[in-house]
Amino acid sequence: MSAQPLPYRIGYGEDAHRLAAGRPLILGGVEITGAERGPVAHSDGDAALHTLSDALLSGLALGDIGQYFPDTDPKWAGLNSADILRRCLELVRERGYAPANAALVVTLDTPKLGSKRAEIAQRIAGLLGLDSSEVGVSFKTSEGLAPDHIQARATILLVRL
Amino acid sequence: MSAQPLPYRIGYGEDAHRLAAGRPLILGGVEITGAERGPVAHSDGDAALHTLSDALLSGLALGDIGQYFPDTDPKWAGLNSADILRRCLELVRERGYAPANAALVVTLDTPKLGSKRAEIAQRIAGLLGLDSSEVGVSFKTSEGLAPDHIQARATILLVRL
Amino acid sequence: MSAQPLPYRIGYGEDAHRLAAGRPLILGGVEITGAERGPVAHSDGDAALHTLSDALLSGLALGDIGQYFPDTDPKWAGLNSADILRRCLELVRERGYAPANAALVVTLDTPKLGSKRAEIAQRIAGLLGLDSSEVGVSFKTSEGLAPDHIQARATILLVRL
Ligand SMILES: [Mg+2]
Ligand SMILES: [Mg+2]
Ligand SMILES: [Mg+2]
Repeated sequence: MSAQPLPYRIGYGEDAHRLAAGRPLILGGVEITGAERGPVAHSDGDAALHTLSDALLSGLALGDIGQYFPDTDPKWAGLNSADILRRCLELVRERGYAPANAALVVTLDTPKLGSKRAEIAQRIAGLLGLDSSEVGVSFKTSEGLAPDHIQARATILLVRL
Repeated sequence: MSAQPLPYRIGYGEDAHRLAAGRPLILGGVEITGAERGPVAHSDGDAALHTLSDALLSGLALGDIGQYFPDTDPKWAGLNSADILRRCLELVRERGYAPANAALVVTLDTPKLGSKRAEIAQRIAGLLGLDSSEVGVSFKTSEGLAPDHIQARATILLVRL
Repeated sequence: MSAQPLPYRIGYGEDAHRLAAGRPLILGGVEITGAERGPVAHSDGDAALHTLSDALLSGLALGDIGQYFPDTDPKWAGLNSADILRRCLELVRERGYAPANAALVVTLDTPKLGSKRAEIAQRIAGLLGLDSSEVGVSFKTSEGLAPDHIQARATILLVRL
């Protein structure tokens, strides 16, 4: 398929973090106030932005964020995940592609996140250069499978510029 | 990307339900007879149809089924999930898109579902306005990760009408 | 959508295997030397190739690898997963489609796999008839959710030939 670059690519990413008391819960760049627990992470542990970052990279076979921003490097401690996503988008654009739409599922038992959907979608859209009508955000609970974690998975459709 | 609507969108959805004895197992609108356990749910707990419904909504950033059909509202108790999927499809079509194909993975340890694949795919295809050759259905076991749950995940390609 | 075959299809697949001591760890057709545990499986347990095989099949609604290569059939014991993937690709091509790009996420706690990324991507690309720049491979750890398993999930974009 390599003779001519295809107009579309699909990307897929995942992330999970264990939750602990006394950590802020930041999701899609939005702080969820009133959460009793937040992600244990070297960076700010934003599972939504990490997932979308990996989804972007995967669509162009650029590796993963663990490779670009290793959590063993003190340089990246407390790193703003919005900066990670911006850098991944830049790598994608340098290769002549941009996101067309994204579909993200976040799994978290508590607190309920529905009231934050519009703000999270708008923030992600801003980071990806999309309209918020191009960023689907679904919320699920783990149904007992992962009560102490936040998880996210996302697909992204990329289009050649 | 918003200047001109793109011809394609990708959607992604997930669902999980805990299993309990004495509940019917309904999957893709098909009752799986002989199952010893079925999903604990406010509605009929059809993980396949819930997943596909969320995948549809996500492709057009329309939120999730928890928002349209909250399980805290007695109005939706015992709701037929086929009706949920029909409503989500309607929302997608109102915005000028329709499913092109769907790929669904269902994870359940027991009973084996392979003999029901054709019936489930045909039923889902009917609901989505697709041919059954456009609805991929894969079955997996949890390999010990979730013996007491049914899980589903799906991607959907949407095309502008 | 069936009147005219669409130029694109999306496929999605998953796999998981329990890990046990004394089993080789083969991933994407590459043996990971120095791994203390490997997948318990009837075949070689290559979660990456199984996932991609199911993703291919799902995009054309051809069922899943459990149907073509049942693990209850001694004929398939120790089966080379590269042969499974080759056969699935053949089924896809017979219907007039080929992979455009693939995005794969592998979740494993140990050993770290990053140093094997290029080799795994190149091997998968060779099997799928793609360039390695069209095969995204991300590695994640389970963050405590599945310390005794290897898991994989993948999306594939298929294009009509
Ligand atoms: Mg993370
Ligand atoms: Mg459900
Ligand atoms: Mg397998």
